[in-house]
Amino acid sequence: MVDEKQDTRIGKRALQLVLANSEEIKVLEQQFEQEKLQYCTGKTGSMDLQKVVSAMETAAKRNGLIEEGLYREMHALYHAILEAVQGVTRGQVQLGEVMRTVGLRFAIVRGRPYRKEAEGEWIAVALYGTIGAPIKGLEHETAGLGINHI
Amino acid sequence: MVDEKQDTRIGKRALQLVLANSEEIKVLEQQFEQEKLQYCTGKTGSMDLQKVVSAMETAAKRNGLIEEGLYREMHALYHAILEAVQGVTRGQVQLGEVMRTVGLRFAIVRGRPYRKEAEGEWIAVALYGTIGAPIKGLEHETAGLGINHI
Amino acid sequence: MVDEKQDTRIGKRALQLVLANSEEIKVLEQQFEQEKLQYCTGKTGSMDLQKVVSAMETAAKRNGLIEEGLYREMHALYHAILEAVQGVTRGQVQLGEVMRTVGLRFAIVRGRPYRKEAEGEWIAVALYGTIGAPIKGLEHETAGLGINHI
Amino acid sequence: MVDEKQDTRIGKRALQLVLANSEEIKVLEQQFEQEKLQYCTGKTGSMDLQKVVSAMETAAKRNGLIEEGLYREMHALYHAILEAVQGVTRGQVQLGEVMRTVGLRFAIVRGRPYRKEAEGEWIAVALYGTIGAPIKGLEHETAGLGINHI
Amino acid sequence: MVDEKQDTRIGKRALQLVLANSEEIKVLEQQFEQEKLQYCTGKTGSMDLQKVVSAMETAAKRNGLIEEGLYREMHALYHAILEAVQGVTRGQVQLGEVMRTVGLRFAIVRGRPYRKEAEGEWIAVALYGTIGAPIKGLEHETAGLGINHI
Amino acid sequence: MVDEKQDTRIGKRALQLVLANSEEIKVLEQQFEQEKLQYCTGKTGSMDLQKVVSAMETAAKRNGLIEEGLYREMHALYHAILEAVQGVTRGQVQLGEVMRTVGLRFAIVRGRPYRKEAEGEWIAVALYGTIGAPIKGLEHETAGLGINHI
Repeated sequence: MVDEKQDTRIGKRALQLVLANSEEIKVLEQQFEQEKLQYCTGKTGSMDLQKVVSAMETAAKRNGLIEEGLYREMHALYHAILEAVQGVTRGQVQLGEVMRTVGLRFAIVRGRPYRKEAEGEWIAVALYGTIGAPIKGLEHETAGLGINHI
Repeated sequence: MVDEKQDTRIGKRALQLVLANSEEIKVLEQQFEQEKLQYCTGKTGSMDLQKVVSAMETAAKRNGLIEEGLYREMHALYHAILEAVQGVTRGQVQLGEVMRTVGLRFAIVRGRPYRKEAEGEWIAVALYGTIGAPIKGLEHETAGLGINHI
Repeated sequence: MVDEKQDTRIGKRALQLVLANSEEIKVLEQQFEQEKLQYCTGKTGSMDLQKVVSAMETAAKRNGLIEEGLYREMHALYHAILEAVQGVTRGQVQLGEVMRTVGLRFAIVRGRPYRKEAEGEWIAVALYGTIGAPIKGLEHETAGLGINHI
Repeated sequence: MVDEKQDTRIGKRALQLVLANSEEIKVLEQQFEQEKLQYCTGKTGSMDLQKVVSAMETAAKRNGLIEEGLYREMHALYHAILEAVQGVTRGQVQLGEVMRTVGLRFAIVRGRPYRKEAEGEWIAVALYGTIGAPIKGLEHETAGLGINHI
Repeated sequence: MVDEKQDTRIGKRALQLVLANSEEIKVLEQQFEQEKLQYCTGKTGSMDLQKVVSAMETAAKRNGLIEEGLYREMHALYHAILEAVQGVTRGQVQLGEVMRTVGLRFAIVRGRPYRKEAEGEWIAVALYGTIGAPIKGLEHETAGLGINHI
Repeated sequence: MVDEKQDTRIGKRALQLVLANSEEIKVLEQQFEQEKLQYCTGKTGSMDLQKVVSAMETAAKRNGLIEEGLYREMHALYHAILEAVQGVTRGQVQLGEVMRTVGLRFAIVRGRPYRKEAEGEWIAVALYGTIGAPIKGLEHETAGLGINHI
């Protein structure tokens, strides 16, 4: 169960953000400010997993969620992205090779999930959208969440 | 992107349900009735993946979401559960063997996600909670979503 | 063990079909008619997994084994195909990326494997052929079977 | 496609053997003698993958298909078994951990599949049976084939 | 290729340590002091992956390589261990379930691999030993390396 | 633990070779002659796994470590390469698809690791280098070892 000692559920916030409509996003934004969370959102759609990974890395860098030149932060983000992608693809980390395409919204959240100061910052990546055949309508929903220390 | 032809996003509903507090659940319940969705929720926590799978199968049977004696329905649910578990474990479908334990809430939703009558019923399984070392506090959030035709 | 209540072993039939010579196919065809099974067969060879998946999807649609516009049926077939491919590739669902090529015969069978009417229709996909280096002769046999409710 | 230079399809023979009824086995036995193939068959059923692997290793040793004290031969057989199991489990090499049980027939064939003398001996392991919930009838067919040089 | 900007190759050091005999260890110890690296070594052998993971976690805690109560550090170590184990098991992160046992030496190294101060500390886990059937002699060598920011 | 009956640790030798500087290589060369081991080394770097596999296959053929026209030997080498690659990629056998690039040194060693004459020849493939984003410096070390009977 989610631990009471955990003040801020960055994974839950990332999932709420990726599922939210424009009104719900406004409510969430206040919460993010209060919880001192940094975040960004975006959309990406492709048969090419490389583009999906790139879209999230680029958004995180442009929005200052990670420091671009710092490998340490890129490494933390990259593994959080790959873990979220595993929720989306469920089994093989592949799209076009197995004739699948995705249309995804993503949310990336950075902050301090634990009360204990020394636990420092963590990053959460949430994905929600559709996966299916490369034909409109032949698809179902999919989601994923990745979390890492940064 | 989520298709406009898709009237009812059973995956989104399952994720909202598993993330909701008691007030939000009341709002969702009205929506579920309106969208003619069947659902159940529950909690499960273990180092033993078998118990996690069993808890969800038992809840789905007890709440009449699937017909117990019908292998067809059990098979659809089982694969949706395994897909949701893959989001939770990200890589290896293992817990205790690799010294991990989970504490999870689950939501199972059954309904008609597509306007087209012939698309019939589908099932969504959402998981949200924590995964980590078998020591309190040494854990982070995790989530998963599985969807199948039934 | 294969259950006595199971009137029609669609997986066994798909495997027999994919292994059969032209004479054996004639014998099997009678059996398929008697057991009210729909089936199609074909050949596909590539270093590109996408082409292998496509060849089977196209054959199933052209031969009326699945209804093309119905995602429900495409989804059932797709997962049966991926499961059969996992038998062929054993571990990574990849071909060219790891310098492998396949030459495969496939058989797709649709029917009612269970006596119980409510169990409805299921689909079986069998693969048999060779996998190996992209040089003639440097290859060995491979096979796979995937089964799903439809 | 299966190569014409390949005199003896040990994988096909193993699959035919594992699918055969008692009459078909007699026909196959003549063929096996003519093609100078060694073989054994058996049954194994469990929620415990370890028992499934052991049953095949024991049968191969008892029937003299591999030389027990020779690691080289054990190693070749072991990897052929694991590959066949991957066809059966499709994705996770797990049974009980994910609430599955199998009932399987197996056939192990040893011989020379290639005309070229230097290609030496190879081993094929075929599996066919059922996989499903640990409740009678809630299961479907499954198969796998593994091949290795020995 | 290993980057020139990388002053200290903690992964190489961990591999050298795990491969070293007692004389070579003395030479390495001087190098570790000069490069300001913390390290520990140990042995573990089991059919039970849980014991292998535990042995390394316990050694890292006892030798002060990670701060026990800090989840952030446990999380970094855990993922480095799992990555090293994937090198050892190559495919399935499983031992006893697939009838395998390991006898391993491990080395854990913590330090600053990059000249850039902001890249901070990283951890490397190296494994070397044998994997095989649970019978003496029926085994071959195996190795793995995992690296993570801490 | 590494078995005392095992005269020659071909995996350890391959790892030592791949980690060695030019002076250490000279020392190792004497040892290789004494232990009657054949070996070759090389470098390969790519986002494309196919090139990495090819580079090693080509080096092994050119240096006479395996007999090119013999599928048996190619098959043994191929599986040893794939196992070493699994140590490098830890989880997915993928590079460019998940936005990763590698720069690797490799060593391939062929010889008799076991005193027992009948155990015959085995092959070891070791990899060491870096894996990371396709941007210089954003990378960390990685290694892998694969072993097979030949």
